[in-house]
Amino acid sequence: MIELAGFRNIVDQYKIIFFDAFGVLKNYNGLVPGIEKTFDYLASQNKEYYIVTNDASRSPQELAETYHKMGLKAITQDRIVSSGMLAKEYLDLKVNNGIVAYLGTNSSAHYIDSSGLHTLPVSAINYTNIDQVNALVLLDDEGFNWFDDLNKTINLLRKRTIPAIVANTDNTYPLSGNNEVAIAIGGIASMIESIVGKRFIRFGKPDSQLFMFAYDLIRARMDITKRDILMVGDTLHTDIIGANKFGLDTVLVLTGNTLPDDAEMRIRTTGIMPTFICNDAVVE
Amino acid sequence: MIELAGFRNIVDQYKIIFFDAFGVLKNYNGLVPGIEKTFDYLASQNKEYYIVTNDASRSPQELAETYHKMGLKAITQDRIVSSGMLAKEYLDLKVNNGIVAYLGTNSSAHYIDSSGLHTLPVSAINYTNIDQVNALVLLDDEGFNWFDDLNKTINLLRKRTIPAIVANTDNTYPLSGNNEVAIAIGGIASMIESIVGKRFIRFGKPDSQLFMFAYDLIRARMDITKRDILMVGDTLHTDIIGANKFGLDTVLVLTGNTLPDDAEMRIRTTGIMPTFICNDAVVE
Amino acid sequence: MIELAGFRNIVDQYKIIFFDAFGVLKNYNGLVPGIEKTFDYLASQNKEYYIVTNDASRSPQELAETYHKMGLKAITQDRIVSSGMLAKEYLDLKVNNGIVAYLGTNSSAHYIDSSGLHTLPVSAINYTNIDQVNALVLLDDEGFNWFDDLNKTINLLRKRTIPAIVANTDNTYPLSGNNEVAIAIGGIASMIESIVGKRFIRFGKPDSQLFMFAYDLIRARMDITKRDILMVGDTLHTDIIGANKFGLDTVLVLTGNTLPDDAEMRIRTTGIMPTFICNDAVVE
Amino acid sequence: MIELAGFRNIVDQYKIIFFDAFGVLKNYNGLVPGIEKTFDYLASQNKEYYIVTNDASRSPQELAETYHKMGLKAITQDRIVSSGMLAKEYLDLKVNNGIVAYLGTNSSAHYIDSSGLHTLPVSAINYTNIDQVNALVLLDDEGFNWFDDLNKTINLLRKRTIPAIVANTDNTYPLSGNNEVAIAIGGIASMIESIVGKRFIRFGKPDSQLFMFAYDLIRARMDITKRDILMVGDTLHTDIIGANKFGLDTVLVLTGNTLPDDAEMRIRTTGIMPTFICNDAVVE
Repeated sequence: MIELAGFRNIVDQYKIIFFDAFGVLKNYNGLVPGIEKTFDYLASQNKEYYIVTNDASRSPQELAETYHKMGLKAITQDRIVSSGMLAKEYLDLKVNNGIVAYLGTNSSAHYIDSSGLHTLPVSAINYTNIDQVNALVLLDDEGFNWFDDLNKTINLLRKRTIPAIVANTDNTYPLSGNNEVAIAIGGIASMIESIVGKRFIRFGKPDSQLFMFAYDLIRARMDITKRDILMVGDTLHTDIIGANKFGLDTVLVLTGNTLPDDAEMRIRTTGIMPTFICNDAVVE
Repeated sequence: MIELAGFRNIVDQYKIIFFDAFGVLKNYNGLVPGIEKTFDYLASQNKEYYIVTNDASRSPQELAETYHKMGLKAITQDRIVSSGMLAKEYLDLKVNNGIVAYLGTNSSAHYIDSSGLHTLPVSAINYTNIDQVNALVLLDDEGFNWFDDLNKTINLLRKRTIPAIVANTDNTYPLSGNNEVAIAIGGIASMIESIVGKRFIRFGKPDSQLFMFAYDLIRARMDITKRDILMVGDTLHTDIIGANKFGLDTVLVLTGNTLPDDAEMRIRTTGIMPTFICNDAVVE
Repeated sequence: MIELAGFRNIVDQYKIIFFDAFGVLKNYNGLVPGIEKTFDYLASQNKEYYIVTNDASRSPQELAETYHKMGLKAITQDRIVSSGMLAKEYLDLKVNNGIVAYLGTNSSAHYIDSSGLHTLPVSAINYTNIDQVNALVLLDDEGFNWFDDLNKTINLLRKRTIPAIVANTDNTYPLSGNNEVAIAIGGIASMIESIVGKRFIRFGKPDSQLFMFAYDLIRARMDITKRDILMVGDTLHTDIIGANKFGLDTVLVLTGNTLPDDAEMRIRTTGIMPTFICNDAVVE
Repeated sequence: MIELAGFRNIVDQYKIIFFDAFGVLKNYNGLVPGIEKTFDYLASQNKEYYIVTNDASRSPQELAETYHKMGLKAITQDRIVSSGMLAKEYLDLKVNNGIVAYLGTNSSAHYIDSSGLHTLPVSAINYTNIDQVNALVLLDDEGFNWFDDLNKTINLLRKRTIPAIVANTDNTYPLSGNNEVAIAIGGIASMIESIVGKRFIRFGKPDSQLFMFAYDLIRARMDITKRDILMVGDTLHTDIIGANKFGLDTVLVLTGNTLPDDAEMRIRTTGIMPTFICNDAVVE
C-alpha cells in the first residue's frame, strides 16, 4: 500500500497545483481548518494553483466570492476553472443562434447567457418558440419544478434534434452536517438521457477536457509540461482517474469523499491508484 | 419475415389468451375500435382470458371499472393480473411488521395497504418513525412532490437497509393524443437505484414472475400447459420477450408501441421475435 | 445487524430446503466438511430438498454423479434443478425444427440434444447450413476455440434473427485452491450481447424462473406454499435476491462467495438482505 | 434535415482538416475511389491535415506505409495521430519502471516498447515476475490465445492494483468484402472491465484527449483556434460526437459506418448532429 506522505514534501516537487474544491478546500462546515496556510506557502514559493471544479451553478466570480466570505482571499476568479466554463465555450463555438433552454437557477443561466444566445428556462418553452430551441443545458438541480419541467424536457428532446449539455457530472452533493445528500443535476441528466435514448454532452471531471482547459490557461502564460502539475482531490472516480489519465500526478486527500478507513479498499476494488495519499491538503 | 396473420385464426389454436392492456385493448383515445367483438368471440368459444399489465397505480377493481366506463364489461377484476399484485404478495410474504413507505398516490397505496402493514407516504417519514420503516414501494409518478420526496427517498435508503420494490418497470407512458409522454415511476426508480447503488426488486413484464402469477391462477381452476396460452402484446421488450422466455407463444399487434413501418426493423435489431404479427387484436 | 443463527434451528421452521451447490455444499476442495450430516438430518425429519444451481455444463444425472463420487449419496438426479433444464424446456416449447448452434462441450450439448432438434457446435456452422439455424445456446466456456468461434457467433447473430439462450448467468467461477477464477459463459454472453446489440434470453438465478421451476416440481407431489421453503445460498446477488423476490425466506452462508468479514458491509451496500445468516449449512 | 453539401465548398471554410481513416479514406477494398484528389487539393490550397484514428495495432510509421502501398503518398507518419500514441504518452508520463504486460501482436507492443519499460505479453507473466507488472495495455485482438490469456488477464488484475489501458475503444472492425465483422480489443476490454469491476483507462474517439493531442501538435507550429478545424468522419458516436464536444465543426460522410438510407434516422435517434453531411470526402 502507498504510504501516507506529508503534503508539503509533495508540493515541493511540482510547479503548479490543481485543487478540487469540495472535500479538499472546504466542506459543509466551511473551510478545511488550516487550508489558508497552504495558499500562503504556495505564494511564498511562487507556485501557481487552480481550482478545478465540477460546479456549473455559479460563475467563477460568484464562486470566488464564496471563498472570500469564508476568509480565503487567495482564490480569485481567474484561478477557477469550472465545468460551467466548458459549457459556455461549447455554446460559443457550436450554437450560433436561437434559444438555449436550461434547467437550473436564473443565476446559473445568467452565466452562460453572456455568449449572446437567448437563454430561457425550460418552463418558458411552448409551442410558439420550441422550433427556435437549438440547445438544452442542464446546470443545477434547483430553480425549477421537477415534475413539470423534467416531463417538459423529455418531450422537448423528443421533438427537437438538439445538443443536450450537462455541465456537472456528479450524481449527488453533500448537505450540511448530517451526512445527508441531495440529487445533483448529473443524476437527473442520466435519467433523462436513458429515457430519451440520446447521447448527452458532459463536461466535468473525470473527462480530460476540464484538465486540458486549465492546462491551456497556464501554458498561455508560462512554459510548462504535464510533469510540472499535481492534482489534489478527494474522489477517486473523478479527480484521481481523470487527472491520471490526462497524465498528471495526483494526491488523494482524506478530508472528503474518501474516508481514511476506506481508502485502501476503494483503491484496490476500483483499480484507481493515486500517486500519493495525504490526510489533508494543509501545509503545516 | 413473418407474414401478417388473421387474429381469429391464431386465437383458435389456444385455450387461454393473455392480453397486455395499453396499446392492445385501449389507447389514449379510449378502446381500440372493435375490441369488444374479440371478447364476444372468446366467450362464444369458451376461451379464458387475462389482462396482464404493468400497472400498479390502481387496484384490479379500479382498473376493471375503467373498462366498464368505456363500455367493455367483459373485463372483470378477477381477469386482471397486475404488477401491483406482485408487490402486494411480496409484502405479504416478506415484510412482517413496521412501516411501508411509498411514492405514489393515496389510491395506489390503499391497495397495498390491505396486507396489514402501516403504509405512509415518503413525505410523512421523519426522525421519529424512520427506524420503523421496513420497506419502500415505488407505485406511481403522481401524488408526491418530486424535488422534496425523491431527495428524501435517497436519504431514507442511505440510512435503512430495506427492500425497495418497484411495481412498474416502464420508463414512460403516453399522454393523450399529442404524441407526448410522461416519465413513469420505473424511470424514476432507475435513477434512484443508480444513485444509491442498491439493487431494487422489480415486478412486471418482461420478468417472468408476472406470467407465472397468471399461469398459477389458471392452473388452480383447470388443467393446462404453457402450450395452451397465447400472449398478445404491442411491445417487444416487455410483452413479447417476457412471454417468449416463459415459454408462451406470442402475437405482436401494431396498435400501440410498435408501428407497422418499424416492426420488421425492430425485430431484426433487437432479435426479439414474436410467433405471429397481427394488425390488431380485433376478431372481425 | 442480523445475528448469526444456528442452521438446525432455522431448518426446523421449514418443510422444504433449496440449496445452492457451489459455496454451500462443495467448493474446489470437495464437499464442505460435515455437509453429509445435514442430509442425514433432513432425511430423519422427512424434509424435502432440492439443489438449485446455475450449471448448464452437464445433465442432472452427471451432476448427481459428481456428488456420489465425493461420498454424498443423498443428492440424486431428481433433486437437481439446473438452469440447463430451463434452456432445454425453452427449446422444447419454442423451437420446433432446424439446427440449434451451441458454444460449449459436447457433453453439455448432449443434454439439450434430447429435445429432438439437431444440435451443432458453432464451429460446424457454414454457408450450407446457416439458414437452418433457429437458435443459439451458450452452455459452457470450454469445448471451443474462443477466437474462431466467438467471432463466428457474432456473425451468425448478425445474419440470423434467432433467439440466443444463455444457460448460466455467472460471470466467473472459482478455480481450485489458489484464489484464481475463470471466465464463465455468462461473462462471454454479456460481451456478445453488447456487441451485437440484441437481447439474450438468460436462465438462472437471480431470475425467478428457476425457483418457479423447482416450486412446480414440488407442488406436483405435495401441497405447499412459498412460506414452507427456505433457500440456502452463498451469493447475495443471485441466491438471496432471487429467492427473496420470489417470496422465499433465505439463509446466507459464509462458506463461499461471501466472506465472514465482508457480509455486513456487502448487505448494507447492496441493500440485499437475507432472512438469516449462518456460518455454514452444516447441522451439527 | 441538413442538406447534402459539396465537400470542396466545406473544406474551403477551414484551415485544417482532421480525417478519420477507416470508412473515410479507405475501406476493406482499398482506398475510397478519388480520395487522392482530395489531398492534391489540400496541398494546392496550403491546408493542413491529420489522420485521427483509433488504431493501436501499429506504429504511425507502419500505418503510413499501408497508405503508401495503396498509392496515397500524402499521408506521412507525422500526419497520423493514433490512440496508440496516447497509450504511449501515458506510459511515458505515469509508469516509471517494471513490466508492462500487453494483449496484442508483437508489432503493436514494439511501438509502446520505446518508452523504455520492459514489455511482455500476458502469456509470459508468471509467479516469478507478476510482482513487477506495473501496467496492462490492451492493444490488439490478435497475437495471443484468447482462452488462455484472457483468463490469465483476469487473474493478473485481481492480484495487482495497476492501471489497465485500452488503446482502442471500438467494439468491432469490418472484415473484407462480405459484410462480416471481427471483435476488436475494445469489445474484449469491456468484458474484462465488467468482470473484474475495475475502471480501465480508454484512449480514442469519442474521448476528447485524442483531438486535443492533434490540436496541440498543430499549435506547436502555427497559430490557430478550434474554429479553424474541420473533422471528417463516418461514425456518429465516435468521430462526430467527439469532435463536436471538443468544439470542432464536423462532416459526416456516407462511405463507411453510416449508410445513406440510415443517416437521418440515426441522427434523430441519437441526437448526435454533424455540422454537414456529404456523400464522401472526395474533392471532385
